[in-house]
Amino acid sequence: MTKTNTGNFFEDFRLGSEIRHATPRTVTQGDIALYTALYGGRFALHSSAEFAAVCGLKPQPVDDLLVFHLVFGKSVPDISLNAVANLGYAEGRFGVPVHAGDTLCAISKVIGLKENANRQTGIVYVRTTGFNQQGETVLEFVRWVMVRKRDPAAEIGPAEVPETAPFLPPGRLVFDSLYFSHYDPVLAGSPHFWEDYSPGERIDHVDGMTIEEAEHMLATRLYQNTAKVHFNQHAEAKGRFGRRLVYGGHIISLARSLSFNGLGNAVKIAAINGGRHVAPCFAGDTLYAWSRIEDVWEIANRPDIGALRVKTFAAKDHPCADFPGDEEAHPQLVLEFDYTVLMPRRF
Amino acid sequence: MTKTNTGNFFEDFRLGSEIRHATPRTVTQGDIALYTALYGGRFALHSSAEFAAVCGLKPQPVDDLLVFHLVFGKSVPDISLNAVANLGYAEGRFGVPVHAGDTLCAISKVIGLKENANRQTGIVYVRTTGFNQQGETVLEFVRWVMVRKRDPAAEIGPAEVPETAPFLPPGRLVFDSLYFSHYDPVLAGSPHFWEDYSPGERIDHVDGMTIEEAEHMLATRLYQNTAKVHFNQHAEAKGRFGRRLVYGGHIISLARSLSFNGLGNAVKIAAINGGRHVAPCFAGDTLYAWSRIEDVWEIANRPDIGALRVKTFAAKDHPCADFPGDEEAHPQLVLEFDYTVLMPRRF
Amino acid sequence: MTKTNTGNFFEDFRLGSEIRHATPRTVTQGDIALYTALYGGRFALHSSAEFAAVCGLKPQPVDDLLVFHLVFGKSVPDISLNAVANLGYAEGRFGVPVHAGDTLCAISKVIGLKENANRQTGIVYVRTTGFNQQGETVLEFVRWVMVRKRDPAAEIGPAEVPETAPFLPPGRLVFDSLYFSHYDPVLAGSPHFWEDYSPGERIDHVDGMTIEEAEHMLATRLYQNTAKVHFNQHAEAKGRFGRRLVYGGHIISLARSLSFNGLGNAVKIAAINGGRHVAPCFAGDTLYAWSRIEDVWEIANRPDIGALRVKTFAAKDHPCADFPGDEEAHPQLVLEFDYTVLMPRRF
Repeated sequence: MTKTNTGNFFEDFRLGSEIRHATPRTVTQGDIALYTALYGGRFALHSSAEFAAVCGLKPQPVDDLLVFHLVFGKSVPDISLNAVANLGYAEGRFGVPVHAGDTLCAISKVIGLKENANRQTGIVYVRTTGFNQQGETVLEFVRWVMVRKRDPAAEIGPAEVPETAPFLPPGRLVFDSLYFSHYDPVLAGSPHFWEDYSPGERIDHVDGMTIEEAEHMLATRLYQNTAKVHFNQHAEAKGRFGRRLVYGGHIISLARSLSFNGLGNAVKIAAINGGRHVAPCFAGDTLYAWSRIEDVWEIANRPDIGALRVKTFAAKDHPCADFPGDEEAHPQLVLEFDYTVLMPRRF
Repeated sequence: MTKTNTGNFFEDFRLGSEIRHATPRTVTQGDIALYTALYGGRFALHSSAEFAAVCGLKPQPVDDLLVFHLVFGKSVPDISLNAVANLGYAEGRFGVPVHAGDTLCAISKVIGLKENANRQTGIVYVRTTGFNQQGETVLEFVRWVMVRKRDPAAEIGPAEVPETAPFLPPGRLVFDSLYFSHYDPVLAGSPHFWEDYSPGERIDHVDGMTIEEAEHMLATRLYQNTAKVHFNQHAEAKGRFGRRLVYGGHIISLARSLSFNGLGNAVKIAAINGGRHVAPCFAGDTLYAWSRIEDVWEIANRPDIGALRVKTFAAKDHPCADFPGDEEAHPQLVLEFDYTVLMPRRF
Repeated sequence: MTKTNTGNFFEDFRLGSEIRHATPRTVTQGDIALYTALYGGRFALHSSAEFAAVCGLKPQPVDDLLVFHLVFGKSVPDISLNAVANLGYAEGRFGVPVHAGDTLCAISKVIGLKENANRQTGIVYVRTTGFNQQGETVLEFVRWVMVRKRDPAAEIGPAEVPETAPFLPPGRLVFDSLYFSHYDPVLAGSPHFWEDYSPGERIDHVDGMTIEEAEHMLATRLYQNTAKVHFNQHAEAKGRFGRRLVYGGHIISLARSLSFNGLGNAVKIAAINGGRHVAPCFAGDTLYAWSRIEDVWEIANRPDIGALRVKTFAAKDHPCADFPGDEEAHPQLVLEFDYTVLMPRRF
């Protein structure tokens, strides 16, 4: 019997089963620095312990997307080692903040299974939850992924596709202990408050960032994400694209970092409503990003905080100054990311 | 109205105005490790908490140039987002040491403005000061930078060019709490004390280091330096050089790291007297460095510490064993960096 | 007199002399994160402070090979600056665990010298010992390296070649304070306990990892290893291979990281019995690895812990699914690494 883990194939998943993922991970100050070096993030809440303290959090919480990548990474060996494609996300909801010193674990529950017509693959829907060492939820999200069958002839039960909400309602956002009543917009680097944004508004984030092989591999390993397609040029040279694929989450983090220019006070991601990797990215691609404000929500009893639902788009090798009429159809589009941010109000 | 920050153009600067920069930054142990990984520094004061404690500082202070890059990085979005070239530095003076856990902020004062004859650009002179969370100065320096005008026709006031000192006098160096009375040169890795250096002496630092795109981008993002020319190959391909430019500070740090071989006991930079980026650097270039001792200063009432004013030169793709008669005219020269270091005396 | 350190040549070494190495190094949380980013390690003992605490160690010890690289790096400027090749290791024995905050130093004793017949070079054998700030041994090992003579005509004493043991006997392994009685294999990511492995068993680690220039240089600088061949493309272009050589230790760490798939519970390296860099590696190479179980040892009075002597092989650009009959003769072999790991027993 081989001792090598071959990962789960489509027919190995059982509806309703819970999978406890391996490799608990203590987040360190080193992760904070590496995350900054990889993306150049400037959101003040994550950059400064002093700024975070003024917002009610001390020390500074680590970047929300770093939490996402770490929790996602844990699920890879069990869920997507035999994946063909990562299809989508929904119902992402951040819980208690994560600080250096916290240890993260993750569990996934299989909430849907649907074989594809060709019987070669099927779609697995899981709800993945990340916890800290006290058992508090730091993040939960649904994702669905196309997974190969080991044996195309294997019999699969009736399709079960879960309903997911198009977005997390503002009432379900978590922001206990976060206060913007003494928020300093000059230190934060943006004069624009929640009141300044309107539904339908578009923001070009202007700058571009070119991806290098060393960078996306450093990032993906930092997240202990073992998906094969990111690391092995010898094998990928014979694969679909002839090249190593960049982890989709790397693109999300690059787009988020670029979005500082225009959304600098969107210091906290509270929800991931959805996401779609429209096209693969490779080393050498230059990423540009722009955003569209989807919704503007007041928060009950909180005159200091407002929420924005934002859709950030990333395109490769194409600046976004000419907002297309229909973003979703941009020919160079690689990412559509729908999320909810918390922003200070002018009060 | 766009929410994107387009940065200040030459006509936006006002003489005497003070600009409070954004993005306070908590320095972490992760920055220490990344700085080591980027440059391979071996100066014992920054490498070892135990060695630093023997020198009166505990824990180890972070590398002086890391402080420089972080403070410099904060000034970029306000001062040099529309820069054509970073022209020079003067009167750099390090203050209290910075340790992991400190949070750095920065302010710049506009101390000079001079339009260029072509009216397309002008030179902005600023004095930038970095502070820690207690408001103590960690570093101040003057820099001047050529900035584009938004509108070449804009009327500009009379030229004002500040006087800057050619070097910081030894009496103004800061080294409270630094003691070399129990300095161990074997652990430090160099047998050469302050007494061993003479004005005019030249030191070849021998080794060469090749620059990679991923490295200079990781470094520059770590410093939250957003200057566009370092990151966007898609745009730079059509630019002046066809390639991404390496942040000049990356070259300074590489040269400093190479200088360990010959200046291993120059553990503390106390002043940056001047600096000039003679030519641009690109990924693939190999940096070599050599130094010339400019001055040798005793420090009043401190038998344990001496100061050296050093000029370190970096050249690309050219070993420095054949010291040119006139360093400043070396055809491959990319950097001239004039600074003052503190060194243990043999007592 | 030049102040540049030219390193020791073969004729500079004296049998029995002890060399105290420079550059004490405080290990930080940043090193932990960078090590994860460089290799993607998933061994739970090093990934999680909570998991380590359950094993009797808190906080998590840093990766054993990181300790090896740091101690090795210290010895380079004195031992192998003028090396032609790093020939082998023996009698490596890990001592007390290393945690973030510890400061490491190293000493080497010259235990053998043997001039080569051509009189151009000779083999230097050293026993290198790494200590923490309390003077406790964290690691000792023997290595031998071929070093150039400065002057081929220099007279050398009679050859002295030390005997080294083929492996460290299990009775000499150090594992005080390590307990596997509450070990959780699901969190660790592997269902295979010590009892499941048999001598002669082979394990294909399946995955491949491609090496980038930026990565191996970041790693080697992180270890403050200054060997010239890793960093200088300008000089290496004219050298033996036309390219920068990857530090051999980088290959060891990559192979160890790949070995998680099949040896996931081998969370602690206790000994390095031997190692051989069979062929050089370069950026662009893709590493694959497989292992052969050499020995299976019970540990007296410890029903929770067992030891395995493992030989891990790394090959470049060749998957290892077809285990060769004779691993040591694999045409693409780059590394043979013989070491002893501690693993939980099923009790």
